[in-house]
Amino acid sequence: MSRPAPFEQVREELRDREACAFVHVGREDDPTLRYLGRAGRVDGELGVVVTADTSMLLAADAPAAARETFPGDSVLPAGGEIPTGERVGTVLDDLGLDGTVLTPRTIPHDAALYLDEAGYAVASTAVVDDARVGKTDAERLRQSTVQSAACAGMRRAAAVLDASHAHEGRLDWEDAPLTALRLRREIDAAIAAEGMAPGYTAIGVGGEPATPRSETTIEPGQTVVVDLAPQGPDGYHGRLVRTFVVDGDGGWTRRAQLAAEGALDAAIPELAPNGADAVQTELDAEVTAYGFDPSAESGGYGVGLARRERPTLDGGDELPVGTVLALDVRVSNPTEGTVRLADLVAVTEDGGEPLGAFPRSLSP
Amino acid sequence: MSRPAPFEQVREELRDREACAFVHVGREDDPTLRYLGRAGRVDGELGVVVTADTSMLLAADAPAAARETFPGDSVLPAGGEIPTGERVGTVLDDLGLDGTVLTPRTIPHDAALYLDEAGYAVASTAVVDDARVGKTDAERLRQSTVQSAACAGMRRAAAVLDASHAHEGRLDWEDAPLTALRLRREIDAAIAAEGMAPGYTAIGVGGEPATPRSETTIEPGQTVVVDLAPQGPDGYHGRLVRTFVVDGDGGWTRRAQLAAEGALDAAIPELAPNGADAVQTELDAEVTAYGFDPSAESGGYGVGLARRERPTLDGGDELPVGTVLALDVRVSNPTEGTVRLADLVAVTEDGGEPLGAFPRSLSP
Repeated sequence: MSRPAPFEQVREELRDREACAFVHVGREDDPTLRYLGRAGRVDGELGVVVTADTSMLLAADAPAAARETFPGDSVLPAGGEIPTGERVGTVLDDLGLDGTVLTPRTIPHDAALYLDEAGYAVASTAVVDDARVGKTDAERLRQSTVQSAACAGMRRAAAVLDASHAHEGRLDWEDAPLTALRLRREIDAAIAAEGMAPGYTAIGVGGEPATPRSETTIEPGQTVVVDLAPQGPDGYHGRLVRTFVVDGDGGWTRRAQLAAEGALDAAIPELAPNGADAVQTELDAEVTAYGFDPSAESGGYGVGLARRERPTLDGGDELPVGTVLALDVRVSNPTEGTVRLADLVAVTEDGGEPLGAFPRSLSP
Repeated sequence: MSRPAPFEQVREELRDREACAFVHVGREDDPTLRYLGRAGRVDGELGVVVTADTSMLLAADAPAAARETFPGDSVLPAGGEIPTGERVGTVLDDLGLDGTVLTPRTIPHDAALYLDEAGYAVASTAVVDDARVGKTDAERLRQSTVQSAACAGMRRAAAVLDASHAHEGRLDWEDAPLTALRLRREIDAAIAAEGMAPGYTAIGVGGEPATPRSETTIEPGQTVVVDLAPQGPDGYHGRLVRTFVVDGDGGWTRRAQLAAEGALDAAIPELAPNGADAVQTELDAEVTAYGFDPSAESGGYGVGLARRERPTLDGGDELPVGTVLALDVRVSNPTEGTVRLADLVAVTEDGGEPLGAFPRSLSP
């Protein structure tokens, strides 16, 4: 899709609100700063200033690297003894501005206080959060690339589980018990080999919540939920969740898998623009049709510079064309475990287009 | 070292400042929330509340996983339609508190406004930043473990460079040109296989600043600066920087390497408590003794839940026993390139103790 560049959307908001500048301060991984500043890997605080005439990035560290990636007008050094929030006020003064300054609601309190003390009226805006919902073709391409790394990680998970065998009531892999931690390391190495940061890889065994250092061993027949959300060097995330069972006896897990798969297949075509309610309804209806209670945790959420961002299916948000969502279905049973499937899907004019493809079979 | 647990340090500050509560709101990767909440991998905003009598974590998502790791009293669900900042105010009201609430200076502005509107006086405190400077034995152990993953990554870098050979004026590895990006992928896979997040891996070739997608090829004789800062699942970072040259002709790079190595060796014993100025002086003096200008970028900085945090050697900060610092020396020349070495060192009663060890030779 085409749409005004981020700075232009901010400037439109400045005109509508009769404000002199948009300002934000935060760390490199702050999605608003990533979106406007495109600066990765800068230690310390960053600031961004957008006015009708110019756009600036204040970078405490590595301004040379930031200069290579910032799509705006200038990169200024910051940091040292003066907090970035205070530096931003000086920059506005130097530009001869006064009046209202718009900021995201999460701007650090000290930055807002500096602006206030410098005589600006601080008011909050959701313009960047709004702009981030509908992805451009370039953003969607970045997410497709990171999603292929998620698929590579999942292939590795399936290969390790497939090469495991039952031994004394648990799975062994390469002559030692297969733990959630060993499985995670294999997956993360495969994601990193694709040039992406594994970041968040969670392995839930038998329905237990996943913890990062889990030494839980895996038993034949247990559900193994592999939840991947790698992040690319530009900050964009993918999301892929699959459930595997080694030496399963069918029964509950097989039915749960069919329900989850049916729910995804039924929900994706409903992803036309503004179909949020219909999508959630389809997800839940399909799970119910298979005789399961719809989980409060099944649903959809935006994926982009944040692992989970707007819109959500149940939050009354719109789904503009270009929105990238994870559709995430979970069927749980206290004794049988959890079956969970999630795909990354882009909203198109007439439905949803999956980014990446990975089999949904329970069998690794 | 032994010291009061984090919550006790916060409570001491509450007593000193006659405040009723400490509050912070942020995302999972916020170092203050990581330090007090120990919750990894929670989507959306988190909040933490510490009073004289209780400590609470508000988690928008995955409260079950957060409950397994939170060392305080209770984990409450948050999120939904109500911003976490507002929820925190309600929690304080429910506890029947009034008066002053202490927050880090970077608490999101909306959270501070909610507290203000709910009738609390909001004042800032650096108590958690102060507490984070001196690491406990447990924290140092986590950093040691993540530093071994940095060493594993560096070993992989050296192995790939060692297996490369000159071909048409550039290095080839496995029958294709070796680019900064190919090298980074190999390193990151090795770090991930150790169970750590590569996060930040920067490859600077010939003195150019590193960018994450750099397709720069590497020429024989060029300096290759490999800068690693992996992060463990608990959020703690390592730091290791080495410089390699394949088929170098000695000369400038060799002298620069000796200067950088000499500077590290001279500075480490000066790392007695409160020796910040002496450490910086030694670093610069040694570089000067080899006939180079001391770089403004040579120095030391704390490493912990943030990749770069307090103290800095030149910021007038103290260096209490237990401080973990990266000592980072850089010698640059516009035509010859950059030689940079950084080690992770803990401050002890009588000097510095390196965490992990990796050869400093230019030759891979």
